[in-house]
Amino acid sequence: MVKLRAKKIDLEIGKRMVLLHEQDALEIGTLAHDWVKISSKTQKTVAFLDTTKSYLNPGQIGIFKDVYEKFKVKDGTVISVSLARPPESIELIRKKVHGKPLSKDEYHSIISDLVHHKLGDIQIAAFLLAEQFHGLTMEEIEYLTRAMVDTGTTIDFDRSCFDKHSVGGVPGNKVTLLIVPIVAAAGLLIPKTSSRAITSASGTADTMEVLANVEFDAAELKEIVLRTSGAIVWGGKLGTAPADDLLIRIEHPLNIDPYGQMLASILSKKLSVGADHVVIDIPVGDETKVKTIEEARRLAQNFVELSERFKIHLQCGITYGGQPVGHMVGPALEAKEALLALEGKGHASLVEKSTALAGVLLEMGFVAQQGQGKQVAKDILASGKALKKMREIVEFQGGDPHVRSDDIKVGHKSVALKAPCDGFVTNVSNAAITRIARAAGAPKEKGAGLLLRWKRGYKVKKGDTLIEIYAERSTKLNEARTLAMKLNPVTIEGMLLHMIPEI
Amino acid sequence: MVKLRAKKIDLEIGKRMVLLHEQDALEIGTLAHDWVKISSKTQKTVAFLDTTKSYLNPGQIGIFKDVYEKFKVKDGTVISVSLARPPESIELIRKKVHGKPLSKDEYHSIISDLVHHKLGDIQIAAFLLAEQFHGLTMEEIEYLTRAMVDTGTTIDFDRSCFDKHSVGGVPGNKVTLLIVPIVAAAGLLIPKTSSRAITSASGTADTMEVLANVEFDAAELKEIVLRTSGAIVWGGKLGTAPADDLLIRIEHPLNIDPYGQMLASILSKKLSVGADHVVIDIPVGDETKVKTIEEARRLAQNFVELSERFKIHLQCGITYGGQPVGHMVGPALEAKEALLALEGKGHASLVEKSTALAGVLLEMGFVAQQGQGKQVAKDILASGKALKKMREIVEFQGGDPHVRSDDIKVGHKSVALKAPCDGFVTNVSNAAITRIARAAGAPKEKGAGLLLRWKRGYKVKKGDTLIEIYAERSTKLNEARTLAMKLNPVTIEGMLLHMIPEI
Repeated sequence: MVKLRAKKIDLEIGKRMVLLHEQDALEIGTLAHDWVKISSKTQKTVAFLDTTKSYLNPGQIGIFKDVYEKFKVKDGTVISVSLARPPESIELIRKKVHGKPLSKDEYHSIISDLVHHKLGDIQIAAFLLAEQFHGLTMEEIEYLTRAMVDTGTTIDFDRSCFDKHSVGGVPGNKVTLLIVPIVAAAGLLIPKTSSRAITSASGTADTMEVLANVEFDAAELKEIVLRTSGAIVWGGKLGTAPADDLLIRIEHPLNIDPYGQMLASILSKKLSVGADHVVIDIPVGDETKVKTIEEARRLAQNFVELSERFKIHLQCGITYGGQPVGHMVGPALEAKEALLALEGKGHASLVEKSTALAGVLLEMGFVAQQGQGKQVAKDILASGKALKKMREIVEFQGGDPHVRSDDIKVGHKSVALKAPCDGFVTNVSNAAITRIARAAGAPKEKGAGLLLRWKRGYKVKKGDTLIEIYAERSTKLNEARTLAMKLNPVTIEGMLLHMIPEI
Repeated sequence: MVKLRAKKIDLEIGKRMVLLHEQDALEIGTLAHDWVKISSKTQKTVAFLDTTKSYLNPGQIGIFKDVYEKFKVKDGTVISVSLARPPESIELIRKKVHGKPLSKDEYHSIISDLVHHKLGDIQIAAFLLAEQFHGLTMEEIEYLTRAMVDTGTTIDFDRSCFDKHSVGGVPGNKVTLLIVPIVAAAGLLIPKTSSRAITSASGTADTMEVLANVEFDAAELKEIVLRTSGAIVWGGKLGTAPADDLLIRIEHPLNIDPYGQMLASILSKKLSVGADHVVIDIPVGDETKVKTIEEARRLAQNFVELSERFKIHLQCGITYGGQPVGHMVGPALEAKEALLALEGKGHASLVEKSTALAGVLLEMGFVAQQGQGKQVAKDILASGKALKKMREIVEFQGGDPHVRSDDIKVGHKSVALKAPCDGFVTNVSNAAITRIARAAGAPKEKGAGLLLRWKRGYKVKKGDTLIEIYAERSTKLNEARTLAMKLNPVTIEGMLLHMIPEI
């Protein structure tokens, strides 16, 4: 134990942290990244430790705002500091690092400490890497899923509940905006929670936000769904499976996505909203998360096996992910394309995919006979009932109940990219399309994005427009255009791909 | 790219970091823990990114002192921020995470980025965990060792150079303070660099510091050794193999010590000071780093194999690590015990171990015939030449050249623990001894520590003193005494180990 004088640091850093001079840290037997007990005459608490060689003098302890908001101190207050016993879960993470499987209680302990901010970044990294290295048994994935559900908010609708999820990686995948109203129009409950984009051009929550509010708490979501059968909201404010966001913050910079963790993360979100009938969209393609049909089959089988452990009815649809879904990418453009499809003016590929997935849920809910789901979904779409339901959902989420595709404003700055020669479109790059749309300002600038005139297999003539880029600001439009010239997002057979040396 | 207004944060955190509001981070396509390019009208640089939801408003960028000391800004300066291409080594770490061995250049790239502070904590954690999981081939350990040497200061004495290293985990291991003067007295160069304690009661540098200064730079070390043949200094100020300290900062909280990394770390320190003849002390025991003789043999073989790749002559001595070395633990007490031995008044176990290890070096240096090294070392010790050499080294390091064991002051507060019954000492716990010495104030309070009256195998009578604890302050003495009562550091056959219920 050492006694140090407090120095308040007016900075909120999102974790309960104190700062010690390296010498004082060594005196209590650590370098950094450990938990310490701190106590004054009247209070005590536990905090995470970092060290400095210069900001503090030996004998001082820096108290960040996250700590001093509850642990009241003045500059100069004498504080006792000693090593705290690390949370039990640190030992459990170490166990997993050494390749041993963990029990139900052990997963609960880790995930509980995670959501209570008791784990440091490097311990979270160790947990994720141990999952990546050693893998998880199906039993462990079950325990992990359960722990992720139990440490967050759950919603119970007291009746059967339907849901869909796309494994991701394909730009323009606005199928949720068709599936939810189709399924809800058939009278089934579908409380869809979605994410915002991190690296994509638009998350479903970003797209829906063009039409309505998406930030609701769990009670509000429940109320909306009980009244309209459907909703499309952002998952971030609900408090469901909060561990997921904390893990993503570390997975992202490490660029890993441990297989068992991915299964658990997806299923925990579905279980948290009480879904017991689920369809999973697994797009397959070079530039998506799942590269081959074999991988997709294995993933689908594991999803089914896992869902059986929770007594939920789950089916997976393996879909084509080799190019963007539909023709529009970016929040407003995707909202517009979804409304066009609901108004009966959608491109075939978007309508086929959406009704196929919606049809699976309709069959599960016994509102369509086996084998008839897709046709029933198409009928609901053609009848205008899905559009009516979408407008109802938009209204309940605080948007304009009369919204039409024509009303959706896209960026007023635009530029067209032309085909440099005659030929067939042989490739449309998901990654390039996403980068160009983001350069144009998506997802933050809702009107930014792009429109693909032609997709794979179409024949184009020199001078035909291939892509229109939309932006809200000229600087962004120029950035996107320059990037598009460099990336060649659309390949035409016969086109010169590179000039060497570059011109 | 986003444009944000600077807000200076008067805090030095030891890494080049900027802080963004989460919304702005998402706009450039990241969550945190990524590298970003920042530029103002006149300057640009790269910094590591963390995010906040509350400390900044969207549109602001927090610039920590580590950055604004070079990248000059005022509050309100407009700064452009975009994602930077991550350092190449991030991709290489990922490769190792996925189990692929790395090349010589690839290890150099990782270690170079590490010492230039281009890697975040979680990336360092990923590197270490990948080493732990997948292991390293002997080739990889060679590359890693080379990279660690090449990214730091190296010293070249232009002649053969000797060194020793203890793998560690045993309290009271002051053999360096005997080996260095014995070897130097025989005319061989031995520039010994040592560490300070992190979790032990006294590192060799802490012990030597009782007698002399230990903080020197590489040029100073070279000068001392060229004049006296020997030195015992702290490694931290030399700049040799700086990667090691940066890795230890992450290994410590993760409580891992990847095998290949340990070999590389040790050997890189030896190579950095130009050692080409090395003896490694591998203590074996329940509470040391190496638990079994089999493990020790494997480690020894790997050390030898690795050293051959660098054309250095290395031998390992497997030693008994089941209890503390000698009878004294703590900086001043260990310095005192070492001087006692140099004065010819040492306990047999300390003298036997020290001369055995020193003898290996004497044989390597051809100042003793094969099989005669230990005896020659004992002769040097008995002749007083080692004491004379030690005083010379102490003098060159700025200490008192007339120092005697009697001059060493130990803590003036002390307490004795008595044997509770008659019997044989069956165990002395390394871990308990270390914890008690640290509770008494070691290593920071130099006089703190303890004296073991009896060790394994000795017969004691009820009421005999088992341990004397020394401290500089009564509060610390009481803490150590309370802990000793709880831990039972010395076990006597027939002793009651626990009372249940506790009294």
